[in-house]
Amino acid sequence: MDKHSIQSAPFGVVGLGLMGSSIVVALLVSGHRVIGVAPIPGEREKSLHYLKDLLSHAEKAGLLTNDKDSYFANVEIVEDYVSLQHCKLVLECVIENLDIKQQVYQRIAQVVSTDTIIASNTSAIPISQLQKLVPEPSRFLGIHWAEPAYMTRFLEVTCGSETNPLVAECVASLALEWDKEPTILNKDIRGFITNRLMYTIYREALTLVEEGHTTIGDLDKSCRYDMGSWMTIMGIFRRMDYIGVEYHLKSYQELFPQLSNRTDVPVDMKNIADKNGRGIHNLDGWYDYNHAEAKEWEEAFADFNEKLYHLAADFHTKRMELVR
Amino acid sequence: MDKHSIQSAPFGVVGLGLMGSSIVVALLVSGHRVIGVAPIPGEREKSLHYLKDLLSHAEKAGLLTNDKDSYFANVEIVEDYVSLQHCKLVLECVIENLDIKQQVYQRIAQVVSTDTIIASNTSAIPISQLQKLVPEPSRFLGIHWAEPAYMTRFLEVTCGSETNPLVAECVASLALEWDKEPTILNKDIRGFITNRLMYTIYREALTLVEEGHTTIGDLDKSCRYDMGSWMTIMGIFRRMDYIGVEYHLKSYQELFPQLSNRTDVPVDMKNIADKNGRGIHNLDGWYDYNHAEAKEWEEAFADFNEKLYHLAADFHTKRMELVR
Repeated sequence: MDKHSIQSAPFGVVGLGLMGSSIVVALLVSGHRVIGVAPIPGEREKSLHYLKDLLSHAEKAGLLTNDKDSYFANVEIVEDYVSLQHCKLVLECVIENLDIKQQVYQRIAQVVSTDTIIASNTSAIPISQLQKLVPEPSRFLGIHWAEPAYMTRFLEVTCGSETNPLVAECVASLALEWDKEPTILNKDIRGFITNRLMYTIYREALTLVEEGHTTIGDLDKSCRYDMGSWMTIMGIFRRMDYIGVEYHLKSYQELFPQLSNRTDVPVDMKNIADKNGRGIHNLDGWYDYNHAEAKEWEEAFADFNEKLYHLAADFHTKRMELVR
Repeated sequence: MDKHSIQSAPFGVVGLGLMGSSIVVALLVSGHRVIGVAPIPGEREKSLHYLKDLLSHAEKAGLLTNDKDSYFANVEIVEDYVSLQHCKLVLECVIENLDIKQQVYQRIAQVVSTDTIIASNTSAIPISQLQKLVPEPSRFLGIHWAEPAYMTRFLEVTCGSETNPLVAECVASLALEWDKEPTILNKDIRGFITNRLMYTIYREALTLVEEGHTTIGDLDKSCRYDMGSWMTIMGIFRRMDYIGVEYHLKSYQELFPQLSNRTDVPVDMKNIADKNGRGIHNLDGWYDYNHAEAKEWEEAFADFNEKLYHLAADFHTKRMELVR
């Protein structure tokens, strides 16, 4: 596992949707060459435009040290997998469909060498299951990014049951150079770490609203102004240390038996999903939106994320010994 | 319920520990007069010093428009409850002990008028239960602040089963003038809203660490860089709208049956609590600390909170129609 040889080859990215494109930009911003595979006819042109937009955003956010065009010159978008042949790390970012992923892995494996690392950005399918679809499964693992990939420090590296641990360590070490804060998950559990944690909140939140204890607006407000005030700097266990472990223990003993353990999904949510509700993207979600509002929200999220990224970086660099 | 008469009288605060003092400063910063009751001998001097420190911090954080001393002149710390006699709103912030709280309510009720609002900052005892200890229970409710009270926008107003809803509305309306984002809980459920949500995360986090899937350091890192990047701006339901409700639905159906439903508390946590572990406060918690590190963490939290408070305020004021 030679980090240098992996980095000196271009990285491959297959699937250039929202997440894939955002990952391409994260790698470009770190000074790497990237080959993006967009196998659907017409996708290539669209991708190039979108990547340019994202690079402009990265530039505006102060992430670039050179001219934007010099980064853009490092990406090549192709239709044919054969261009991946010299890559030592290929990231799969296609939709969460097992059949499609299987075809993609076969095509990648046909052109790359047997020691090329192949990674999935899946957040829904277990790595151990995907791994079975890949020749030489020990070089396969999960690399899970947060959106937007070039402006978040999160990166979850997940081993499947057959993954060589050295591959995971090597990827985590590369990720540090991408300015990420990688975590390694040695056991491949459903939902990984942050998804599992978040889904516990969603479960309770849906239940509290369904039972009429509060409204979605008030619940969001509470979260934003309570957890939102410390999550970025503390995390969960450090928070307990800040408030006092003993204090938490008493509350747990009272509260754990009362929390929602439901396994079903509320009807209201099913109704939105049945209409293919994609919230601010198609104006159908928990809240009401018109086009202008959805656009304003999108901009507000991007703007806030950018500011918070820099704020967190300040603590990251100035107080590295603390925050790590 | 006359808001004006409530505001023109001084507010009363009983119990001047960390939280009570922080609440006093929040009220002072909003331009109010406050009478703090510190019934334990020697507590008065300590309180005055501590309040001065907090006001200095509020000044440094840019929360004061006048000279610090002019705010300090508005607080009176007394040993005797009789000074509360003209207050129209008294906030109880003593420890989570039913007997002590009962004594406090009796003493308050003996000196104030029967329409004076009495509120508890409890996060552990149901309001409906506390209410039974108060003469004229309809004027009693929960006002739950986040720490530090003068630098967070969170405020949860909770009705007990006998609370007059007009009292809750009046308090929420006052809270807007304290620069808070109040939410009203009409039904008094154990743990209120954010505590219930957070405890679901704690439950899953403790289980993931106990089962060896990850470490406390990696789990915290994931939370800080994933949820931490959006919680302050989105909350929970808005997040679903951002990612897409349909996407969440699929994951829920897979994940809900797999999340921890435990009702017990992990042994490791009990061990820390048995040693009265108060984390950074007494160097005994999930992480190791020496005195210097604990102090550095405390300063980093305060510093970050201050910066995030201003960042969020920027979105709050500039995009009020969005963020509300």
